[in-house]
Amino acid sequence: MRIELINTGSELLLGKVLNTHQTYIGQTLTDAGYTLAHQQTVPDTAVAIQAAIAPAIARSPLVLVTGGLGPTSDDLTRQRIAELLNLPLEEHPPTRDRITAWFKKINRPMPETVLVQAQVPAGAIVLTNHHGTAPGLALPTGQGWLILLPGPPRELRPMFADAVMPFLAEKLAPETPRAIRTLKTLGIGESSVEEKLAAPLAKLTAAGLELGFCARVGEVDLRLVSPGYETMLDDAEAIIRDIIGEFIYGRDDDTLEAIILRELTARFQTLAIAESCTGGIISHRFTNVPGASAVFLAGHCTYANTAKQATLGVTSETLAEHGAVSEPTARQMAEGARTIHNADYALATTGIAGPGGGTEEKPVGTVFMALATNDGTEIVKRLNRFDRETFKQVTAQQTMDLLRRKLTI
Amino acid sequence: MRIELINTGSELLLGKVLNTHQTYIGQTLTDAGYTLAHQQTVPDTAVAIQAAIAPAIARSPLVLVTGGLGPTSDDLTRQRIAELLNLPLEEHPPTRDRITAWFKKINRPMPETVLVQAQVPAGAIVLTNHHGTAPGLALPTGQGWLILLPGPPRELRPMFADAVMPFLAEKLAPETPRAIRTLKTLGIGESSVEEKLAAPLAKLTAAGLELGFCARVGEVDLRLVSPGYETMLDDAEAIIRDIIGEFIYGRDDDTLEAIILRELTARFQTLAIAESCTGGIISHRFTNVPGASAVFLAGHCTYANTAKQATLGVTSETLAEHGAVSEPTARQMAEGARTIHNADYALATTGIAGPGGGTEEKPVGTVFMALATNDGTEIVKRLNRFDRETFKQVTAQQTMDLLRRKLTI
Repeated sequence: MRIELINTGSELLLGKVLNTHQTYIGQTLTDAGYTLAHQQTVPDTAVAIQAAIAPAIARSPLVLVTGGLGPTSDDLTRQRIAELLNLPLEEHPPTRDRITAWFKKINRPMPETVLVQAQVPAGAIVLTNHHGTAPGLALPTGQGWLILLPGPPRELRPMFADAVMPFLAEKLAPETPRAIRTLKTLGIGESSVEEKLAAPLAKLTAAGLELGFCARVGEVDLRLVSPGYETMLDDAEAIIRDIIGEFIYGRDDDTLEAIILRELTARFQTLAIAESCTGGIISHRFTNVPGASAVFLAGHCTYANTAKQATLGVTSETLAEHGAVSEPTARQMAEGARTIHNADYALATTGIAGPGGGTEEKPVGTVFMALATNDGTEIVKRLNRFDRETFKQVTAQQTMDLLRRKLTI
Repeated sequence: MRIELINTGSELLLGKVLNTHQTYIGQTLTDAGYTLAHQQTVPDTAVAIQAAIAPAIARSPLVLVTGGLGPTSDDLTRQRIAELLNLPLEEHPPTRDRITAWFKKINRPMPETVLVQAQVPAGAIVLTNHHGTAPGLALPTGQGWLILLPGPPRELRPMFADAVMPFLAEKLAPETPRAIRTLKTLGIGESSVEEKLAAPLAKLTAAGLELGFCARVGEVDLRLVSPGYETMLDDAEAIIRDIIGEFIYGRDDDTLEAIILRELTARFQTLAIAESCTGGIISHRFTNVPGASAVFLAGHCTYANTAKQATLGVTSETLAEHGAVSEPTARQMAEGARTIHNADYALATTGIAGPGGGTEEKPVGTVFMALATNDGTEIVKRLNRFDRETFKQVTAQQTMDLLRRKLTI
């Protein structure tokens, strides 16, 4: 069954905001056995919205539209679609009541304009918005369904999960089963992955296994798609792990932070972090995981040398003799964090994120990463020549991978 | 001039990765006076790629295509477009030499398959890739140009900035000037913004000013588009600032972190951070800004109570009497961080990010934010009822806004 997604919003075309609806909806559909066949973004104009929707509903039994349902003057979707389908707009009293009650609850005056959101095309199934004012709408098109969803992610997501997915299960169940798995690798190149795997997987690909590669900075995601059988994915994964197993850090939505916290939680062990060049991103990522507080004791973001001395015990001799970006400093940061917090493990980073601060001897991108453990401290030096934010991300991944390898290989 | 963007990549439709090309390309074009009229994502199949490109090049003088130029078997764009335009593929010797030299430089064996990237459609203008192997390609279509770009962002971005934009300036200069400005607000709702501004701006909107609203969690971006005149934007901004000025924290790409660092740098003042519930995101954001090290001394991510005591000087009496999520703890965290690092300002957060950890008295979402200064400490309590990651983001914005208001209002 062909499914299309149409995102309305000039801000998406102006490059002002990321289209997180596409990842959320794509992922949710994929997990349920559906495939998004096409996605497009159109500006907030009547002509563009109608020009995109008319052919989409003619060729696809399910068309999802996001945005443009709000109360402001650039919210045109509801009216333009009613015109297109030749349906009058009618007031939906329960929605009017819900919106009025909503403003009472949040104790703000209700601008009269918000009640335009209670106007719905005749015959629409109204999807209640539990996190905002604009309701979602499901409209029969003759060929199938057109579903309109509000633009704010915190309104769209619960509505999609709790109302749209059950609606699809009832009206448009997926035709054929299909199994997908992504293996996430770190530290090996895209061409090498394919070259190493092509021959060993040839039998499975001949039998219908599809392989996809998505290269990111320092990482390659390997996507396996099987026509229906989880066992084919298991067979493929076993072959792949035999060949490049050490580089595989997870599957599907796994993250290094979640894997590490899961391993440490199971062992009743703890972690502390001392970051200089990564500037807090490692702490930020660990603390994104619910339950992190059972394992993650503290992070230091010691940007200034005085902070490295005052809170981690890095010595002035080490800084004077070797500099802040050095193996001895990385070692003292990790060991200091481990000792101060009485943690089982500590990770540390010190390097030059750039764009300034590089020297001949230590160019921008130079970084020392340390893992302090009960058995001693491991230190790795790398040259990560990227822009500042990419440098932080890549260095964070490599640093966390030190601990992942320690815990899982 | 109509410009279209076609992103190839099944991973985008499966919801595995965010389409950051759309924001990068949209923003870069917008800044140069162009407007992206349409964007679509198609899967990595020959049929889908050709079905999207054929009508696009017929209706638009500039079509940009991303992805599918790499060396693996799912990289189909180059071949399928050569077929579509009926152009033979030919080896491009400088590209072959560059790819061979690239592998020598990174000191890895070169898989033979990578040389497929030196095959280019006859007549193509080759855009050199300085950060990877696959070159970009500009192809004349009769109606205009079709430009193919490699998928990895760190290859695409410099190529787009350094090769595609100058190419456009030469071949397809923007027709009419147009001025765009975004005002970024924090702490006021979308309907309220529009209601307050509609009448005062009526004269300008009648004269051609367009207003757009983009609501995010706790924030509203207000987009002003003028048909050519910066002065119209200045007039509009003056009217808007008169009415909701205190809520406006910046323009266009401004971020709270960059504004605060700019203000502090100009005053030779310094900053320290003590985070509990925000888990390092505030430090991470400040350290994303180049030059942060002149101002930002240190961040603490004190998740455990013992870490709050050991590194910030929060007292056991305070924790026992009021708990970690309390006004006194927030105060001691901020004042402790300010004192230890001898900073001019310190920000602190302590709260319950959830999903666990809430109580009747202090539900999930409760947070205390503190700003410690030379003149004393300001503390704000909020209830941010969001999922964990949104909670961290919103709380970080609100906390940083305390300092922004202190420095700029």
